Amino acid sequence: MDEREISQAVIQRLPRYYRFLGDLLDNNVERISSSDLSKRMNVTASQIRQDLNNFGGFGQQGYGYNVKYLYTEIGKILGLDESHNFVIVGAGNLGQALANYAAFETSGFVLKGIFDVNPKLKDISIRGIKIHMMDELKDFIRDNNIEIAVLTVPKENAGEVAELLSDTDIKGIWNFAHIDLKLPDSIIVENVHLADSLMRLSYKIGHYAKGDLQK
Amino acid sequence: MDEREISQAVIQRLPRYYRFLGDLLDNNVERISSSDLSKRMNVTASQIRQDLNNFGGFGQQGYGYNVKYLYTEIGKILGLDESHNFVIVGAGNLGQALANYAAFETSGFVLKGIFDVNPKLKDISIRGIKIHMMDELKDFIRDNNIEIAVLTVPKENAGEVAELLSDTDIKGIWNFAHIDLKLPDSIIVENVHLADSLMRLSYKIGHYAKGDLQK
Repeated sequence: MDEREISQAVIQRLPRYYRFLGDLLDNNVERISSSDLSKRMNVTASQIRQDLNNFGGFGQQGYGYNVKYLYTEIGKILGLDESHNFVIVGAGNLGQALANYAAFETSGFVLKGIFDVNPKLKDISIRGIKIHMMDELKDFIRDNNIEIAVLTVPKENAGEVAELLSDTDIKGIWNFAHIDLKLPDSIIVENVHLADSLMRLSYKIGHYAKGDLQK
Repeated sequence: MDEREISQAVIQRLPRYYRFLGDLLDNNVERISSSDLSKRMNVTASQIRQDLNNFGGFGQQGYGYNVKYLYTEIGKILGLDESHNFVIVGAGNLGQALANYAAFETSGFVLKGIFDVNPKLKDISIRGIKIHMMDELKDFIRDNNIEIAVLTVPKENAGEVAELLSDTDIKGIWNFAHIDLKLPDSIIVENVHLADSLMRLSYKIGHYAKGDLQK
């Protein structure tokens, strides 16, 4: 399999497959047909067959897919078979909410530190993880093998933090600040746009009311 | 145009078009070619032409798309030309972070009230919006024409709140509690899976390191 051939659209869908397969595993389901998975995921069976064939998940006639195998393979492609140390930059409400969300750890994302400019927060801990001041960020990233910075600072401060991070070996930024960051090509940015899913909800409400949406 | 014919995949992409077109408008761009939009959005020009033709956004040869027209049309399809009253149920860190995010209002989503079980939070205001106790929720939804409930309670309490909401005229739930809710068909649920985008970041970091990802 040449992973380079996997399209962006498939990559976009992978985390969802991973979630559904994980739920099946939790329920001790060992195998599933593309048509069963299709019903659960609300995707056509032919799309599922096309997508999963990318990952050597060839379903066998009359047997279906091996859930654990597919889950493991997709996890590897997503890089979840290795652990990734991360920091949260910005200890406001959103930063604290994410710090409290322990489920990231089960996918291999390990929170090592939280950073803020507010001296009142210094040395306070969330789930045992200490809040540090921003002037320690660069050294902390270097000394703790940090791969990912979660950016939960206000929009106005995001540029400044991005500049600071540019000068580190950070590999990726999970950006909740609603602003385009200027960063070197070596740092990957994934922007979170929460409002997108609120707009989809609005679409569905409107079209359900008109009677032209199947739930 | 028969909106029923618009595929789920296109709907999924609409909020992103809406965002990009809104940015163009903010920058006083009146028209854009599919190839320019393609470069900005990192989507093929043929996909853009296919998608936008669904909404009467027929680009003219040598002219391109009328940005304002497309933005307005997509906004209508998403139901953003009308306002939607909403409440936040769960005033923890995530609930407070969302309550503080004023940008929802510019898309027509109007926060009317925040609800929690913690009596210490009673009558505290966030951005001028009062926190109420849960026993007022049902009457509040009825009296304030609330369409959407944002669910930011802990997983353990989500079922109970869903049951309460089932007995109201709420139209949609924006669900941040990582659990499948049992609800009548008339209530649309949009689940938020933040970890999906973290997994995509992890994928991109891994494949950028291998040299097989174009930024």
